[in-house]
Amino acid sequence: VTRRKRRIRVVVPVVTQELANAEEMARAAGPDTDLSVVLIESGPASIETFFDEAIAAPDTIRRIVEAEHDGVDAVVIDCMGDPGMEGAREMVQIPVVGPGQASMNLAAMLGHRFSVVSILDQRVVAQFERQARVYGVWEKLASVRWVEVAVLDLGVDRADLTKRLVAESTAAIERDGAHVIVFGCTGMYGYADAVRAGLHAIGHGDVPVIDPFPAAVRLAETLVDLRLSPSKRSYPLPPVKEIRGFPLYPTRTSVG
Amino acid sequence: VTRRKRRIRVVVPVVTQELANAEEMARAAGPDTDLSVVLIESGPASIETFFDEAIAAPDTIRRIVEAEHDGVDAVVIDCMGDPGMEGAREMVQIPVVGPGQASMNLAAMLGHRFSVVSILDQRVVAQFERQARVYGVWEKLASVRWVEVAVLDLGVDRADLTKRLVAESTAAIERDGAHVIVFGCTGMYGYADAVRAGLHAIGHGDVPVIDPFPAAVRLAETLVDLRLSPSKRSYPLPPVKEIRGFPLYPTRTSVG
Amino acid sequence: VTRRKRRIRVVVPVVTQELANAEEMARAAGPDTDLSVVLIESGPASIETFFDEAIAAPDTIRRIVEAEHDGVDAVVIDCMGDPGMEGAREMVQIPVVGPGQASMNLAAMLGHRFSVVSILDQRVVAQFERQARVYGVWEKLASVRWVEVAVLDLGVDRADLTKRLVAESTAAIERDGAHVIVFGCTGMYGYADAVRAGLHAIGHGDVPVIDPFPAAVRLAETLVDLRLSPSKRSYPLPPVKEIRGFPLYPTRTSVG
Amino acid sequence: VTRRKRRIRVVVPVVTQELANAEEMARAAGPDTDLSVVLIESGPASIETFFDEAIAAPDTIRRIVEAEHDGVDAVVIDCMGDPGMEGAREMVQIPVVGPGQASMNLAAMLGHRFSVVSILDQRVVAQFERQARVYGVWEKLASVRWVEVAVLDLGVDRADLTKRLVAESTAAIERDGAHVIVFGCTGMYGYADAVRAGLHAIGHGDVPVIDPFPAAVRLAETLVDLRLSPSKRSYPLPPVKEIRGFPLYPTRTSVG
Amino acid sequence: VTRRKRRIRVVVPVVTQELANAEEMARAAGPDTDLSVVLIESGPASIETFFDEAIAAPDTIRRIVEAEHDGVDAVVIDCMGDPGMEGAREMVQIPVVGPGQASMNLAAMLGHRFSVVSILDQRVVAQFERQARVYGVWEKLASVRWVEVAVLDLGVDRADLTKRLVAESTAAIERDGAHVIVFGCTGMYGYADAVRAGLHAIGHGDVPVIDPFPAAVRLAETLVDLRLSPSKRSYPLPPVKEIRGFPLYPTRTSVG
Amino acid sequence: VTRRKRRIRVVVPVVTQELANAEEMARAAGPDTDLSVVLIESGPASIETFFDEAIAAPDTIRRIVEAEHDGVDAVVIDCMGDPGMEGAREMVQIPVVGPGQASMNLAAMLGHRFSVVSILDQRVVAQFERQARVYGVWEKLASVRWVEVAVLDLGVDRADLTKRLVAESTAAIERDGAHVIVFGCTGMYGYADAVRAGLHAIGHGDVPVIDPFPAAVRLAETLVDLRLSPSKRSYPLPPVKEIRGFPLYPTRTSVG
Repeated sequence: VTRRKRRIRVVVPVVTQELANAEEMARAAGPDTDLSVVLIESGPASIETFFDEAIAAPDTIRRIVEAEHDGVDAVVIDCMGDPGMEGAREMVQIPVVGPGQASMNLAAMLGHRFSVVSILDQRVVAQFERQARVYGVWEKLASVRWVEVAVLDLGVDRADLTKRLVAESTAAIERDGAHVIVFGCTGMYGYADAVRAGLHAIGHGDVPVIDPFPAAVRLAETLVDLRLSPSKRSYPLPPVKEIRGFPLYPTRTSVG
Repeated sequence: VTRRKRRIRVVVPVVTQELANAEEMARAAGPDTDLSVVLIESGPASIETFFDEAIAAPDTIRRIVEAEHDGVDAVVIDCMGDPGMEGAREMVQIPVVGPGQASMNLAAMLGHRFSVVSILDQRVVAQFERQARVYGVWEKLASVRWVEVAVLDLGVDRADLTKRLVAESTAAIERDGAHVIVFGCTGMYGYADAVRAGLHAIGHGDVPVIDPFPAAVRLAETLVDLRLSPSKRSYPLPPVKEIRGFPLYPTRTSVG
Repeated sequence: VTRRKRRIRVVVPVVTQELANAEEMARAAGPDTDLSVVLIESGPASIETFFDEAIAAPDTIRRIVEAEHDGVDAVVIDCMGDPGMEGAREMVQIPVVGPGQASMNLAAMLGHRFSVVSILDQRVVAQFERQARVYGVWEKLASVRWVEVAVLDLGVDRADLTKRLVAESTAAIERDGAHVIVFGCTGMYGYADAVRAGLHAIGHGDVPVIDPFPAAVRLAETLVDLRLSPSKRSYPLPPVKEIRGFPLYPTRTSVG
Repeated sequence: VTRRKRRIRVVVPVVTQELANAEEMARAAGPDTDLSVVLIESGPASIETFFDEAIAAPDTIRRIVEAEHDGVDAVVIDCMGDPGMEGAREMVQIPVVGPGQASMNLAAMLGHRFSVVSILDQRVVAQFERQARVYGVWEKLASVRWVEVAVLDLGVDRADLTKRLVAESTAAIERDGAHVIVFGCTGMYGYADAVRAGLHAIGHGDVPVIDPFPAAVRLAETLVDLRLSPSKRSYPLPPVKEIRGFPLYPTRTSVG
Repeated sequence: VTRRKRRIRVVVPVVTQELANAEEMARAAGPDTDLSVVLIESGPASIETFFDEAIAAPDTIRRIVEAEHDGVDAVVIDCMGDPGMEGAREMVQIPVVGPGQASMNLAAMLGHRFSVVSILDQRVVAQFERQARVYGVWEKLASVRWVEVAVLDLGVDRADLTKRLVAESTAAIERDGAHVIVFGCTGMYGYADAVRAGLHAIGHGDVPVIDPFPAAVRLAETLVDLRLSPSKRSYPLPPVKEIRGFPLYPTRTSVG
Repeated sequence: VTRRKRRIRVVVPVVTQELANAEEMARAAGPDTDLSVVLIESGPASIETFFDEAIAAPDTIRRIVEAEHDGVDAVVIDCMGDPGMEGAREMVQIPVVGPGQASMNLAAMLGHRFSVVSILDQRVVAQFERQARVYGVWEKLASVRWVEVAVLDLGVDRADLTKRLVAESTAAIERDGAHVIVFGCTGMYGYADAVRAGLHAIGHGDVPVIDPFPAAVRLAETLVDLRLSPSKRSYPLPPVKEIRGFPLYPTRTSVG
């Protein structure tokens, strides 16, 4: 029996081509998955603020509707802020997975408390605490920390970033009571092994480090295999109505 | 001494001119306030879903940035979903007020528990419960109910809508333990007196009914008078970066 | 058209005349408000403890019942502990506003988390955490701090008090994650500008500082304008019964 | 060895002699306890509202300070609202126990969820939910119900009251998921056996029924025996200051 | 490149051979997984009570330690109560997954609220609410319902069980606000399709139905693939000490 | 009248005779109580981990069933982890009390927040936070701290243990905001006086210190006197079914 490969579409909700390395991303999927990657065309260079999320969401949703039209089995939004996830879940029937929700829920299952170690500055605290509340994992969140690096600078100095991630993870463990670490940006994809090694070297090898992008891809695969999708009772199809200024949206009647 | 009037801008986050009666809206403001009203140009005809909010937010934020450029003192977003509120608070220094937050917090101060009575169908439950969690008033929310009327049909039959609002408010009081009622749509603006009368007639005159739009306008006035604005520590100015597809945004350097 | 001015009565729930500067208080009201001020006759010199609140409450309620008899439109209790607020809301139909509830709810709307910076010593922590729970803003409270000054010494050395308020606000911001500061005593009325300036000088100009007394007065004005009052379902009129030892209370039959 | 009997003082926070049957109350204590009973002299005939609690608290605290002067080992306040408990705990060193706190905490230990079945009408819901929040047992509270009987009518028709208590307890069990019942008024003292019998007769003998007054007396005895008292860090001695209108209070210097 | 198949061991924590159909269980795994199944030798015939869990846990943990010795990559405990999961996570390094945690967390990601539809009678309410609290998904739990069938009778009448599952799921959706259904017993494995069909037929096709056993197997596969294991900071290896009465446990020194 | 003495059985859920000093334990009971003590025969030398609890629970439950057969009035499990408590409450009708639940609830009544000071290392944090959640006292828990001493070493150096308990209690008070201290191990029985003295010497005499074992014994006495037992609706009698490997259990039919 030949089993058809799962088709998963990654929607990168920014306009920066450098943030979407399809080959590297494909390694996050299982052997039975074809992973395709698209960027959005309208939106920010990177997602760091509520404003960035707001202007990324409409074209992200358009790309997800397009993905369903293309016949893919599930979509992963490549950003911890999960921009557009809820609106997209209303517009399509296939699973739409966000790494923020996927990785924080996974962390909640692996230990007593988890911390998020993210980009930039203190502004990320409110962002992740807000997500933790909405996703219902608030009581499992030990703290949110940051490495003082902007998204677009994440790849500049790998050794430096690793060092900062280890330092903040250590502070999360020793001061905030974290038992699990979750990276707060999918731009940190690929750093988990180095951070685990760094933590191990200073006696914190007992703490799992979750790389959110692969966690989201695996959740998408699981949903496809189990034939599960987000509840259409939580995310019912929007009623048909006039929309101005978004000519690229497929007409709603073809969706419903 | 002549006191300059407060200037408050209402941003109506839909493209439907009929939903923005400037004259009627002006009655919600105090005598020392000049109220101006604008609609967005890109977005949905009405806001009923997460998708609607997502496509309304970018142009709503643009209108709010524009309002600050115009020298207004505060902005009110005319929708219970408060679309774009957090992104806009990042982009400007003036107060940005949403009727969802303003009315639910006011309700929390007036009684033990409040219920939201909203438009449409059961989909609004998740929307308002999500807001209540994010706004921190979760423990005060008794229930969310709906009247089975779409936003664009709200003005069609005033007597019928009043009857439905009274019926659902009564159910909220008698079955869910509500002590305060909040309308779940700013399109219900002006119905509070009739609903209070209806409730009084059946022995529930002891329950306040909050009309969210005036509540938001008064909060905006209060913030202007007290020279308070949302915390820029919660909503710091976004970093300057490339944005594609939103030519109408003022350049960020003129904002910062 | 002449609009009748709102009449608001401030009840100062202590017996210390120096704590009730009517002229200064009047500046907290809008131009359309007549503000009158009364003290209680039985009670403590200042309110710092649960005991102080207990002995202040009965005469505070009496003064509020009296205010309604005098035809005022709303009452503000001039103390962050809101002594007697719930009992008074049962006894009258007009809005009774406490600065504790008004300022903490306002803070909850302006940012992700707020801290209270109060008088005296660690005893205030339990007091404000208790209020935050009862008022339903618990999840928004970052911390409670204190300046080691008794209420009656608040006006003695303005520069010193400002310095202490800035120092504790800074600790709240940097160590506790506060995004908004609320003064924990109405005796700190008038210090907000100086504290904002002090915070600005050390790089925390992004944090709003809420002066609770003006916040309460503005809320009272808003409720009068919107014709809203606390829910009589939460605060029903008490049944008539024998009361001993409180001869100054108006007979209940004239209230009911 | 002769062991000195514990001396426990019951303070009945009302002025109605009929509500304080010392002989019947003594049966709630263990054999090694001398129970004395006093009423207050200033306050309401019964406690049913926040207003009643406010006017009962000052003289209740006075009676508790007096009890400590008399050398008793612990005090029980004879009312589910625990009026004056926190202020009294500040003023004295001996244990001050309220049946509201004692019985709700006991219920929380005996089963998954408990309901309070109280006097009067729906107003008691907010009162007990407020207490459950302050006492930290909120998550264990299934519901609050009431029997439509005023406090002063509780003893009029025992059979009728029993029937009502069984009916509301049954509703709490079957509709609200209660696993334990707590009476919501110490005026229901002595009804537990009859209510248990009534519940047993209809198949709910598996549900414990807690009579709050004996539960409070036993907690007071336990605290005396274990030499424990409420934390003076939560309830520090109030600072000495001027108090007007409460001539009966012992001077504070004799307390400190 | 040949990829070694994952080896996953299912530990069935009961002594009833009929509850462990290895062939059927294998269908829950992906093509790259070898699934082996063992029962325990000391314990109950089925797990329905806290007592059952207590006597099932020791031998379940022994089987999991044995599985690690056998070189398997991960273990799934085949019971919604997740008996022994926490103790086993202390004793081994490999992932130990429970269907209770796996399915409730999955449900929390798929919709606003979920309900558990379980076996037996009302006793399951406390069991699942307890798990929801410990797992941190409490705020996502709409309700717990039951079908009045004992575990050992689950397979007796498939049509009847399906009908009961549809009926209780419908009640959960319509009365309790559930947006996702989770079966409350792994003995319901294989019923999801029929229940989905039943729900679809009455207009509730918008509600996902989660079969917990496959959900747990997929989570185990994901953890193996991502090289993640429960936090050893939450579940540190127990210290070596004397144990009596459990001769079958491998000596601890060979584990440490 | 001769009053029969209460008969209370202490079940020590370990196999280490040294941990069960019956004479010392008897001092925790009142004069009207006969206290008997038994150890378990199968289980660990001490309880420090989830694994220890899992292997202690079955024989603990057996001892409790046996105690009921022996006619005792109530049982106390001598371990803060309360191993087997829930399963035992299902199997018997008499009160089963755990010092974890008894002492944490008592602490919740005595002050605003409490901290647990326990044995060993950071692993106890997750254990006690889990218990606090299940017991519903989560919001009262300030922190969990530990003294870096194993259970079996607790009696080795009394002065050293006292010093460590004072040091960690002080940290809990000064850094974590604790107002009450609860020992986190019944092996600390008898240290409360010395720790209180140590805290008093450094200015923290205002903080009660709760010794969990006597607190549990007193709660058991109270339940016997009030004729209360844990709810059989929360803990219904388990259905009769096959059990393998536990020959020492009395047959279930003699229990039901």
